[in-house]
Amino acid sequence: MRIRISRENLLKSINIVARAVSGKTTMSIMQCIMINASGTEICLIANDLELGIQTIAQGIILERGMIAVDAQIFSNIVRKLPDNDVSIETSGEKVMIRCENSKFAILGREGSDFPFLPEIDRSVGIRLSQYTLRDMISRTIFSISSNESNGMMTGELLEINGHSIRMVALDGHRIAMRKNELRDVYENRKVIIPGKTLQEISRILSGDTERTADLFFTDKHILFAFDSTIVVSRLIEGEYYKIDKMLSSNYATRVICRRKDFLDCLDRATLLVKEEDKKPVIIMLREDEMELRINTTIGSMDEIIPIRKEGNDLNIGFNPKFLIEALRAVDEEEVVIYLMSPKAPCFIRDAEDRYCYLILPVNFITID
Amino acid sequence: MRIRISRENLLKSINIVARAVSGKTTMSIMQCIMINASGTEICLIANDLELGIQTIAQGIILERGMIAVDAQIFSNIVRKLPDNDVSIETSGEKVMIRCENSKFAILGREGSDFPFLPEIDRSVGIRLSQYTLRDMISRTIFSISSNESNGMMTGELLEINGHSIRMVALDGHRIAMRKNELRDVYENRKVIIPGKTLQEISRILSGDTERTADLFFTDKHILFAFDSTIVVSRLIEGEYYKIDKMLSSNYATRVICRRKDFLDCLDRATLLVKEEDKKPVIIMLREDEMELRINTTIGSMDEIIPIRKEGNDLNIGFNPKFLIEALRAVDEEEVVIYLMSPKAPCFIRDAEDRYCYLILPVNFITID
Repeated sequence: MRIRISRENLLKSINIVARAVSGKTTMSIMQCIMINASGTEICLIANDLELGIQTIAQGIILERGMIAVDAQIFSNIVRKLPDNDVSIETSGEKVMIRCENSKFAILGREGSDFPFLPEIDRSVGIRLSQYTLRDMISRTIFSISSNESNGMMTGELLEINGHSIRMVALDGHRIAMRKNELRDVYENRKVIIPGKTLQEISRILSGDTERTADLFFTDKHILFAFDSTIVVSRLIEGEYYKIDKMLSSNYATRVICRRKDFLDCLDRATLLVKEEDKKPVIIMLREDEMELRINTTIGSMDEIIPIRKEGNDLNIGFNPKFLIEALRAVDEEEVVIYLMSPKAPCFIRDAEDRYCYLILPVNFITID
Repeated sequence: MRIRISRENLLKSINIVARAVSGKTTMSIMQCIMINASGTEICLIANDLELGIQTIAQGIILERGMIAVDAQIFSNIVRKLPDNDVSIETSGEKVMIRCENSKFAILGREGSDFPFLPEIDRSVGIRLSQYTLRDMISRTIFSISSNESNGMMTGELLEINGHSIRMVALDGHRIAMRKNELRDVYENRKVIIPGKTLQEISRILSGDTERTADLFFTDKHILFAFDSTIVVSRLIEGEYYKIDKMLSSNYATRVICRRKDFLDCLDRATLLVKEEDKKPVIIMLREDEMELRINTTIGSMDEIIPIRKEGNDLNIGFNPKFLIEALRAVDEEEVVIYLMSPKAPCFIRDAEDRYCYLILPVNFITID
């Protein structure tokens, strides 16, 4: 193989596929990036079997071939090269990387055991803007469970319903839901996508509303196609939780407050919480104000925030982290919070049902 | 005690004294910041017995007193408060911190066991700009030894000689020396200052050439006074190494090269060096060019840089890290390097003797 490619294009492509390089195994083919120049284009591929990414790098093929190189070493070298054309040439498993007066030689692998991406039918898919996809992920992903043994909770539900798309994450203590309109009408569909896939893909997607991403499905896989990149991920199998039932609820108290006031105050309250103890913040809803109190081994905090309230007064306790993450996922200057009782979940939602954040309260015994 | 102070002033003062808070002991008085408002000014003090810092915070004393508070908790709270006036009030060992609608209560300590700074005579001292002091530290400190058991090598020599000041750091493999002129003539003096003191003080000093720092000495301590801050550090005892003899040397080869070319190339070479193995970079000096080669378990690199050379051709090996750190400590576009033989140290120095970086070579057996 012999190719020539600008350092800029090469580095951009490396940064994209590197997201699918396995961080766990050592010295395995899954820690490699495959440079495939056996066709008419230079393809970079990485695949840890859960998640595979393939992207086309703009460059010139002088002699066809392919080689797998250690992702870490290869990307470190390219990162430090001068900003000029890079030539990559193989001789057996030896890989020569040249740029200006600099000449590197490293050992590659023929890659006969490299896991190429599965072929997926791309005749029927759905299309949305990269911005929308990235936005829905970032505003829900924090609510998945990080505990590997929690199965479906480590992924997110992606649901197509006519011309609406919905993403849902939950971890047993809270639910995050985001909904958007699609331009066309599609067949109904529900899949559960691993959280890691969504995290990595949201780092590659552009924030551009004009650029689109296409999604294709099989029983076991989802494929994202955008720009010159393809991402293939396995799906989590199973029937997702009955979300609609959980998200529909009456309320006895409706509170409107400035989001920033509430966030800043919760932020201060968490100062007093150590990682290991799960001290709740106690929220006391009164006529025109909300009082927040927290009392831990480190000290205590007490703060009052102005609110507008309809319905009953209420004292309720929450894990402040869950409130903070939900409030950060919302853009509005003012948020509306719906509550029922000290033992029922609270909801932060908009009137149009574009988002809903449900948080379970924490039991507290005395307020002192 | 009852004081009122703007959050901005308080945070600035906390950030200064926090540099002397001990990171090692747990729950001891040395992890506290002392707020001393028993006189006419609000003083913040921290002292880990090696290094003590005291600074005056602009604010109002409503009721005199003092209290020691956990540095970590106190600074976290102040950092998150709204940007407004903060009131701090004690009631026994309870400390109330108020700002706008926010009210924190934490436990302080009376601090009868707090180590206040030693009194040091400030009648005779030396004066230089904060910029110069900070600059000399940052351009030498990387050459001290980080191995605690290396005694004097963990500190830097500070030498006053008439109207010149010199700082020297060495670790057994290299020497870094910086010299500057003082405005006045002072009594000759040599002290060895702990590296940690210099590191912390260089983070507090401003880069302003117009603002001055005064240095005072006792047999065991050095005191730095600048702005509203005092830093006291113990000195390292003993007779420093005979530097002048080490730094004077003939040469057989004199090389001039562009500093950036050399640095970038060394930077690339280090990609192939793992932490644990100490592979040297081999430098081959020829008529108009210098070839750099490195060969490790990861791969090999080879690069040629144009130079101007006087004297003999030479092949010599170095730890690339030492060359990189010395070259980074120099500003010039071109550097002059003096060499004698493959077994003798090289010198990077200017004609005026304002700086000198000495680096010992590494033995290498074969160049392949």
